Amino acid sequence: MTALDELPIAEAGRRLRDGSLTSTALTQHSLERIAALDSALHSFVLVTEARALADAARADAELAAGHDRGPMHGIPYALKDIYDTAGIRTTCHSKLRIDNVPEFDSVVARKFTAAGGVLLGKLATHEFALGGPSFDLPFPPARNPWNLDHVTGGSSSGSGAAVAAGLVRTAMGSDTGGSIRGPAAYCGTVGLKPTYGLVSRRGVFPLSYTLDHCGPLSASVEDAAITTQVIAGYDPNDPASADRAAPDLLSGLEGGVAGLRVGLPRNLWRDATGLTEETAAALDRLADALRDAGAIVEDVTLPDYELFNACGRVILLAEAFAIHEADLRSRPQDYGELFFMRVSVAASISAADYMQAQRLRRELAEAVNRDALSRYDVLLTACALGPAPPFSAFPSDMPGPMHIQTMPFNVTGNPALSMPAGLSATGLPLSAQLVGRPFDEALLLRVGREVEKIAAAWGDPLRPAMAAR
Amino acid sequence: MTALDELPIAEAGRRLRDGSLTSTALTQHSLERIAALDSALHSFVLVTEARALADAARADAELAAGHDRGPMHGIPYALKDIYDTAGIRTTCHSKLRIDNVPEFDSVVARKFTAAGGVLLGKLATHEFALGGPSFDLPFPPARNPWNLDHVTGGSSSGSGAAVAAGLVRTAMGSDTGGSIRGPAAYCGTVGLKPTYGLVSRRGVFPLSYTLDHCGPLSASVEDAAITTQVIAGYDPNDPASADRAAPDLLSGLEGGVAGLRVGLPRNLWRDATGLTEETAAALDRLADALRDAGAIVEDVTLPDYELFNACGRVILLAEAFAIHEADLRSRPQDYGELFFMRVSVAASISAADYMQAQRLRRELAEAVNRDALSRYDVLLTACALGPAPPFSAFPSDMPGPMHIQTMPFNVTGNPALSMPAGLSATGLPLSAQLVGRPFDEALLLRVGREVEKIAAAWGDPLRPAMAAR
Repeated sequence: MTALDELPIAEAGRRLRDGSLTSTALTQHSLERIAALDSALHSFVLVTEARALADAARADAELAAGHDRGPMHGIPYALKDIYDTAGIRTTCHSKLRIDNVPEFDSVVARKFTAAGGVLLGKLATHEFALGGPSFDLPFPPARNPWNLDHVTGGSSSGSGAAVAAGLVRTAMGSDTGGSIRGPAAYCGTVGLKPTYGLVSRRGVFPLSYTLDHCGPLSASVEDAAITTQVIAGYDPNDPASADRAAPDLLSGLEGGVAGLRVGLPRNLWRDATGLTEETAAALDRLADALRDAGAIVEDVTLPDYELFNACGRVILLAEAFAIHEADLRSRPQDYGELFFMRVSVAASISAADYMQAQRLRRELAEAVNRDALSRYDVLLTACALGPAPPFSAFPSDMPGPMHIQTMPFNVTGNPALSMPAGLSATGLPLSAQLVGRPFDEALLLRVGREVEKIAAAWGDPLRPAMAAR
Repeated sequence: MTALDELPIAEAGRRLRDGSLTSTALTQHSLERIAALDSALHSFVLVTEARALADAARADAELAAGHDRGPMHGIPYALKDIYDTAGIRTTCHSKLRIDNVPEFDSVVARKFTAAGGVLLGKLATHEFALGGPSFDLPFPPARNPWNLDHVTGGSSSGSGAAVAAGLVRTAMGSDTGGSIRGPAAYCGTVGLKPTYGLVSRRGVFPLSYTLDHCGPLSASVEDAAITTQVIAGYDPNDPASADRAAPDLLSGLEGGVAGLRVGLPRNLWRDATGLTEETAAALDRLADALRDAGAIVEDVTLPDYELFNACGRVILLAEAFAIHEADLRSRPQDYGELFFMRVSVAASISAADYMQAQRLRRELAEAVNRDALSRYDVLLTACALGPAPPFSAFPSDMPGPMHIQTMPFNVTGNPALSMPAGLSATGLPLSAQLVGRPFDEALLLRVGREVEKIAAAWGDPLRPAMAAR
């Protein structure tokens, strides 16, 4: 019999509705798993047990009374600890906000509540969603459920660890340069950075106004689609929000890839530092399998990865510095070493540097959208270039070897999906990235669903050993 | 009998269609006026006589053949010399681009051609649309037709002078901090800065990406409406362009103001440096007259003018520096003194300063739109705080006393209309400014039409003496 934590959200929903499962039972199961496993994982910085049980009891009562709030009704979820939760401490994993209790929910938290979701708690990140792993913060870094000596990637570290370990099926992350897709790749979960503007960021602590995206890390493509369906939508209070109807991400999910055109921008990763042969082979194998499934897969050339990365770094650090400038000056000692070092250097970025980066950004977005995605329905590219590195590879005073190629699609705003793609010889997840046209998450997830089936057929374990507890 | 230069565009259009006038006659009349008057005004830096006569001949042939391109067909117009014109020198009034002959038309120039307009030539500006008046540039500054010893305001200086002197009924300017509305106010023409995103800026040399607007200076509200109708519309090649249908600016123009709500933000100008009693009195008189015409006019408080101005200055200078940085470093001697001094100091603006200004900008836009324009249909406020100052008030090495309160609506992006409002005791135009909701140019122009009727009834001359030649 399938353990409750292996039930897809949709299947759990069916059982909640046919009376064979209660949200309370599902929630208690998650809480027990957290109690049993999280002292090793450190994925949660706060477990909101009473709130979760109250949410679950309400969901059970509502469903019993025929009041159905849709596919997340009665389903547990968790939030990266940069999402404001009214009355619940929201720390950004930082000493600076260790006592911060927001008065209002973030828009995403409000949407989960309206959809009947069950809040399990708040998840570990890197300080203010940058840098890490660090050991000089109020909470330890989350650990990788596939091997506790290895990092989760960041900054949605707790989200990746919790979903991979089966503590929760879906969790919110945020992605400024890859903070959803990196931990998804290293932890072997699905991770969706939606199109810039699809999901409101109101009430989510900003790292970088024009690069931040909210999105889910989930146990499957379908779980990610359900989650995104719930959180998407126009918000006049987020200046980046796109004023358009919410998408339908579910009805076409099983449509397959026959006849779709897939571009393969090998030039991005072919000669990249940190690329492992296993990752390169996994990408080739996926490309072949997509061809076998009826897709047309062709090489396409994009601008150099380093151009995207440099562009994104200047914008990210300049915007982060603007947000933190006052605190960096008045209470520098309260920041962790990595955040302080990485952001304080951005004091020297000039307005002209910043604007040249924003100009370059428009050109790069044109190269991806007008040149490549006018001819291809999606791009298949690398996400992490190798498996998660060990903690021992990270010195305390400089960035470590997290080689992930996610920044290009923060720069361009395209939706991008991190997908598990088998395991390394060392038993750690490998990954691939799919990139879609702006606001075409439906097609992106449909191709992701095919990749999920392909990788499942390879026969590698899909969950870490510790999740099988 | 009305002189041809006094014919409103719509009336000229009727005569072109009933056979009592030809575009060639209308064009020759403009060319003759330019030849007679512009050696004193310096409003044109290039008269495209052959092109104008060819455009006119084509319009006459087309109209005779029943091919009607709409209200600008056969009507002369002119372009500020920052609008690219294919095959026609476009200098930005600068030594740096003195030999620049663009390969392609700006989008606005293309729209005029498609609408059958007759290009008379290119108009004087300040160097790269900033600063001035200056005497160290390739062309002299334009002079005010009401008094040649007085400035026109800038930077659409030639546009204001040419329209006020009756050389052309309508001319394109651009407005980054007031460069349409300032010269319109000082020269006694109508000047419309449309909503940010309504008119494409593609092919117009930028001063500041996020503050630049293209719009007309025209002899009447109706002429401005016709011109804006022709140039408005979505352009995917301008990143700021709004993807929406072109407005209908003409059918409601005579609708009057009965029942409309007009907000009067006196706090902007009441204690401002440079405010003359005549200007304050003209604003009061207009407010009373709008009440008499059936509008509800009430005081409303906006944030301090200096907050808008500081915000806009930081953004304008930082963006201008980013555009000119390479040339400022490699060929500083080719810039005029004023432009070089004002823009080179912006090297010291940091990315964080710039972003704080952009954040403040969003708050100011909310104050105008959510707080004020949710309750009022339009705002009536000051444009220039007094009449045009004399050239003698402008030292060569620092900005002079051009006191205009136009920057707030570059910062917020709202449409703003400069309207003539009588004459000073010294015989120079006074002005007022109307501000509308984003993309509601139709209502703004309708109120402008009422103000035009009110001011006409005051009995002051509407054109300078030199125009009566």
